[in-house]
Amino acid sequence: MNKQLLTEFARLAVTVGVNVQKGQLLRIIAPIEAKDLVHECARIAYEVGAGDVVVDYSDDVLSRIRFEKAGLEVLKEVPQWQVDKQAYLIDKKCCMLSITSPDPDVLDGIDPQKIKEATMARLKAMKQFQYYTTNNIGQWSIVAYPNLTWAKKVFPNDNEEVALNKLAEAILKASRVNDSEDVVAVWDRHNRAVKGYAKKMNDFNFDYLHFQNSLGTDLKVGLIKDHIWEGGADVTAGGVVFNPNIPTEEVFTMPDRHKISGRVVASKPLSYNGNLIDGFELTFDGGEVVSFKAAKNEEALKNMLDTDEGAKSLGEVALISHDSPISNLNILFYNTLFDENASCHLALGRCYPSNVRGGLEMSDEELYAKGGNNSLIHVDFMFGSADMEITGVKSDGTEIKVFKNGNFVI
Amino acid sequence: MNKQLLTEFARLAVTVGVNVQKGQLLRIIAPIEAKDLVHECARIAYEVGAGDVVVDYSDDVLSRIRFEKAGLEVLKEVPQWQVDKQAYLIDKKCCMLSITSPDPDVLDGIDPQKIKEATMARLKAMKQFQYYTTNNIGQWSIVAYPNLTWAKKVFPNDNEEVALNKLAEAILKASRVNDSEDVVAVWDRHNRAVKGYAKKMNDFNFDYLHFQNSLGTDLKVGLIKDHIWEGGADVTAGGVVFNPNIPTEEVFTMPDRHKISGRVVASKPLSYNGNLIDGFELTFDGGEVVSFKAAKNEEALKNMLDTDEGAKSLGEVALISHDSPISNLNILFYNTLFDENASCHLALGRCYPSNVRGGLEMSDEELYAKGGNNSLIHVDFMFGSADMEITGVKSDGTEIKVFKNGNFVI
Repeated sequence: MNKQLLTEFARLAVTVGVNVQKGQLLRIIAPIEAKDLVHECARIAYEVGAGDVVVDYSDDVLSRIRFEKAGLEVLKEVPQWQVDKQAYLIDKKCCMLSITSPDPDVLDGIDPQKIKEATMARLKAMKQFQYYTTNNIGQWSIVAYPNLTWAKKVFPNDNEEVALNKLAEAILKASRVNDSEDVVAVWDRHNRAVKGYAKKMNDFNFDYLHFQNSLGTDLKVGLIKDHIWEGGADVTAGGVVFNPNIPTEEVFTMPDRHKISGRVVASKPLSYNGNLIDGFELTFDGGEVVSFKAAKNEEALKNMLDTDEGAKSLGEVALISHDSPISNLNILFYNTLFDENASCHLALGRCYPSNVRGGLEMSDEELYAKGGNNSLIHVDFMFGSADMEITGVKSDGTEIKVFKNGNFVI
Repeated sequence: MNKQLLTEFARLAVTVGVNVQKGQLLRIIAPIEAKDLVHECARIAYEVGAGDVVVDYSDDVLSRIRFEKAGLEVLKEVPQWQVDKQAYLIDKKCCMLSITSPDPDVLDGIDPQKIKEATMARLKAMKQFQYYTTNNIGQWSIVAYPNLTWAKKVFPNDNEEVALNKLAEAILKASRVNDSEDVVAVWDRHNRAVKGYAKKMNDFNFDYLHFQNSLGTDLKVGLIKDHIWEGGADVTAGGVVFNPNIPTEEVFTMPDRHKISGRVVASKPLSYNGNLIDGFELTFDGGEVVSFKAAKNEEALKNMLDTDEGAKSLGEVALISHDSPISNLNILFYNTLFDENASCHLALGRCYPSNVRGGLEMSDEELYAKGGNNSLIHVDFMFGSADMEITGVKSDGTEIKVFKNGNFVI
């Protein structure tokens, strides 16, 4: 990434993404490979007035060594100081920037049960803090940074340098960063367009959506009563605008976890905890997955669905035009942040409380009683396609075509 | 560093350096640039039975940005979770491996007062844990890893690739790693030689040492009553042998903090908190620095001496033959770990309790009462030279030549 674009990208992450406020603590989670972006983000954050920047570096290679060699009890331990640290950051009302630079196959071949138990232990220990981001108490954002392994996975026929440059270019394009326009203005315009679709969907107030395509998907997703379609920028409880995902193209809302039925066939592979689950489909009845299969890593899929009750139902339904900028790049990124924005998707697991009226003020129990999903996980998977048809059905039976040939027609 | 030598070096750090025990937690502190060595160390540690490996990555560039941009109050804050983390690691009886890969000028130009206050705050918060390493409760070790900035500082006339290779080669040579001999055997032999000199010095039981050379040093360093000369491998309270410094050539003991007088002229620059203090000398009277000057970064020297009472006196005196392997490389590393092993040195600040009989069982107050130094800092500086003469003087006035022309003659 050349220096000018790197700086512009960091500016996007810090000012449009988390929108760090004067005096606020910025916490950055990043793999060591993304250090150049980390440095730019830190510099810019201090320049716009951040009180401090705390960086936690991760290391995929080290994680893999640990999963290979350490005992299960060790992998499952979450030391109290890690919990205390998270409590400290939240007590400081920090904003949280995650820089992801994945190796999609990093945990390939590791015992899925080991990964599951370690992941569960961490999720449980940190569950008490989940509200901070899911309820938009503080700003949070995720951006991506290229690395060589990822680049070679996405562009296997190019040499390392070319592949890395191509991935960097794709990330910047998808994130709407270029050298001729100001990112803040670009994202402002983009957010207004996305919010236009969300408003229309809210005005329709559908009872359920019926998805159909030639891959075999024939799925009815009931929407929760008083649901809210959202998209683009978000706002914290304190009124600070931020963009949780960079890039983002989706408009999304909350399904009723009891009212999902039919078959959904994934249109892209899913990278979950370092395993690539491919060629999979799920069949729902009464809101719950009743059968599933996968051509690759079916056990990882099974373990994910077994996480808890909510992991077998949905927490989010998201609509993306098939001719979105990311979709038009026609690249499989092997990464949810991008691939979910190239295609309509669903999320297994936890819902976003902001997707229902009054949801941010509801307790977990109230949200659950209303039909929300209360899982430890939230995993997006893609099922959109160029021939996706979506029909919105109102409670009086009125049918409205929402998507034709993969695109919005409202 | 080629893969074979990297693995051998990691084996040295993990098995000879910290000598991690079965089931023990290994904590590694390392800059992100040293990730390749970190990965090898982690892999080997698990293979020899470590219970777990916890890695804390540091980032010099980020530290500099923070020192440039963050406010003093922020820099001085040590969050409780960091203290809790250290307490957790010590409670687990971990061993601690530090990998250093310094940029000697990283904080050049930063306000020394800012650095001093931030460093003091951290030292104070962590003082409660200092005993763990200084009293050899757990094993600890420091090794070095090359980086480009450091390499260009050491070899300014070579291109980047050549400089980096030369530094890697010098580190391996100094650390006695090569591709034909087993490092464990090499270090075993080396430790026996060093311990031979320490035994002789203990048998002499000198009252004080008199240092003289043509640079202008004319210094008498009184040794503490019941002092112990140490060198080479160390042993924990629980009987585990480890090597705190890789490389190490020194035999060293504890001065009496009241009995130091005369002038000492440094023979190499000193990198302290990212500032290179050069061309400096100190004059002692009654054990205390009464005057000092430096050609470069005198203020950093002043701030260091001002840390506390003990920072103005000595805590260690160390003897190294001028024709040691490191000295023969004839390289200024701009790093204490190496440069201190190329030349006789002194340390301003805290003593090592193991350098006096019964010291490990003494309280801080008892050690202080006996003449030990109780400072927050321990900073080595070099004053050895090719013409260093050292005379040992016993309490009955007997004089013994210890060094002639820079080398041991006992």
